[in-house]
Amino acid sequence: MTRCYGGIDLGGSYIKAGLLSENGEIIEKTVVPAEVDRGTSSLIKNLRSIGKILSESAASNACELRAIGVGSPGTIKFPEGIVTGATPNIPNWVGINISEIFTDFPFPVLADNDANCMGLAEAMFGAGRGTANGFYLTVGTGIGGALIIDGHVHRGASFCAGEFGHMVFVYNGVKCKTGRLGCLEHYVNAAGLIRSARKYARKYSGSVLRGHKLDVVEIFDAFNKGDSAAAAAVGENAEMLGTAIGSVVNLLNPEVVVVGGGMSQGGAGYIDLIRSSVLKYAFESTTLNLKIEAAKFGNDAGWIGAACLNIG
Amino acid sequence: MTRCYGGIDLGGSYIKAGLLSENGEIIEKTVVPAEVDRGTSSLIKNLRSIGKILSESAASNACELRAIGVGSPGTIKFPEGIVTGATPNIPNWVGINISEIFTDFPFPVLADNDANCMGLAEAMFGAGRGTANGFYLTVGTGIGGALIIDGHVHRGASFCAGEFGHMVFVYNGVKCKTGRLGCLEHYVNAAGLIRSARKYARKYSGSVLRGHKLDVVEIFDAFNKGDSAAAAAVGENAEMLGTAIGSVVNLLNPEVVVVGGGMSQGGAGYIDLIRSSVLKYAFESTTLNLKIEAAKFGNDAGWIGAACLNIG
Repeated sequence: MTRCYGGIDLGGSYIKAGLLSENGEIIEKTVVPAEVDRGTSSLIKNLRSIGKILSESAASNACELRAIGVGSPGTIKFPEGIVTGATPNIPNWVGINISEIFTDFPFPVLADNDANCMGLAEAMFGAGRGTANGFYLTVGTGIGGALIIDGHVHRGASFCAGEFGHMVFVYNGVKCKTGRLGCLEHYVNAAGLIRSARKYARKYSGSVLRGHKLDVVEIFDAFNKGDSAAAAAVGENAEMLGTAIGSVVNLLNPEVVVVGGGMSQGGAGYIDLIRSSVLKYAFESTTLNLKIEAAKFGNDAGWIGAACLNIG
Repeated sequence: MTRCYGGIDLGGSYIKAGLLSENGEIIEKTVVPAEVDRGTSSLIKNLRSIGKILSESAASNACELRAIGVGSPGTIKFPEGIVTGATPNIPNWVGINISEIFTDFPFPVLADNDANCMGLAEAMFGAGRGTANGFYLTVGTGIGGALIIDGHVHRGASFCAGEFGHMVFVYNGVKCKTGRLGCLEHYVNAAGLIRSARKYARKYSGSVLRGHKLDVVEIFDAFNKGDSAAAAAVGENAEMLGTAIGSVVNLLNPEVVVVGGGMSQGGAGYIDLIRSSVLKYAFESTTLNLKIEAAKFGNDAGWIGAACLNIG
């Protein structure tokens, strides 16, 4: 019987889940509302139902479900599966042992931080496939990161590694939402791009962005159609993000940098601008063989990576 | 017969070397001029003589010399020992295979980058002893770094990892000597401390630093005696350095941060200021068990770490 691995990606709004073959092929996938506002026991119930759906789905696909992995926001003690650090997206989540939610299921359940899962998915079967050392970042409302070192997720001493968004970018700069001054996140996240697009829309009279409320999708649409204000805003964003990535490349000298998250779907032109900026800031010796790629799995990276926790 | 390991630290001015027991005890050490201006073949000759001195020294200490390690500036392909990246301190050094210099010696010779050796020395027998994940930095004329991850030196895809000094600290900031804008090194190295001390010496009329040319030793002496201008300059330096370290702590979540290099000899008060600044910038979840220490081995860290390349 073919083996398969279940993955569950717990988000503030939705739970995404699916079955993965051991070669990384998607066998089946599903999305259900997370309903986190209904409280912890309701959420636990939803996770258990997803576990059962995955079990049934494996049976109907004639697969042997070997294990399930869960990706969750917050800090997750690995491999124990305990939520040790809070996430604003899921109230009262600290202290929960995610693995124990499934203790009566007939296979092991591992849990890890969701950004780590996304990095692992891309490293094993996505844009970082074939590399052992990679830097995986997500750019959207927040800026996240995951590090794969010597083929393993680098979780850090207290399972908190990867906080790329809260590296200093402008010493004594603008206050970020965590209270720190000058964190990268403030400058390059979705809100930063929108601020910048508004600024340039006022400046360029021919821009289609003028007078609009603006969101990231609209800005990237305009960028991909050659709008001048969008080009200036996206260019500024990519220049900053690429410099920060180049700075991490100087520190870690990875084989691959993979850019994921909502904004990475802005298209190849955006990734090209980021790449140019990385190559400008990072030492040439670190970039000669460096690959800089858009993430492959988009919204599926979380559950795919969670499934990967149990593969290999 | 007791086993011992030779270490050689090649610098632009001196070659430091010694014998280490497998428990990290110093058996013997020596320093000779490097005479790099006499050219590559002279330098190779000097390294071979040091190798012979270590062999004789082992014999006279009734030790079996099992191997020698060499720490060198520049990028070193490990474990091959080939210099693949230039260093301004040793002309024409690229392309040399350091291990092959000793090919007729009756034991293996490994070579690695000197900052990696310093990190390894501190990780195995110094301030990072007992930890598997550490960030080791040196602060002096330049800012260097080494990463120990899961008990191993993280050298990176092209053996260039650890360039802490060329992480971005002020986006679009002051041009550093490599041409990049806003690199950390410009702000916190010895020259940066001296600039800052001059500024505060003009401001504080009671300062002993007023009207002096100033060097790092003098500034730290004054700091340790409570001089107001020195306190302001050292405080500013430690605040910046600690923020940058905190930023790396957010990314890597190490167990220990070890501060070495010339400026780390500024005393416990300097390390205390750096520690406060790290704790202010890094997430609390990353610092609960984080140790921030001054390096233990000072000028001996290079050769001790080179010897460590062959231990364990």
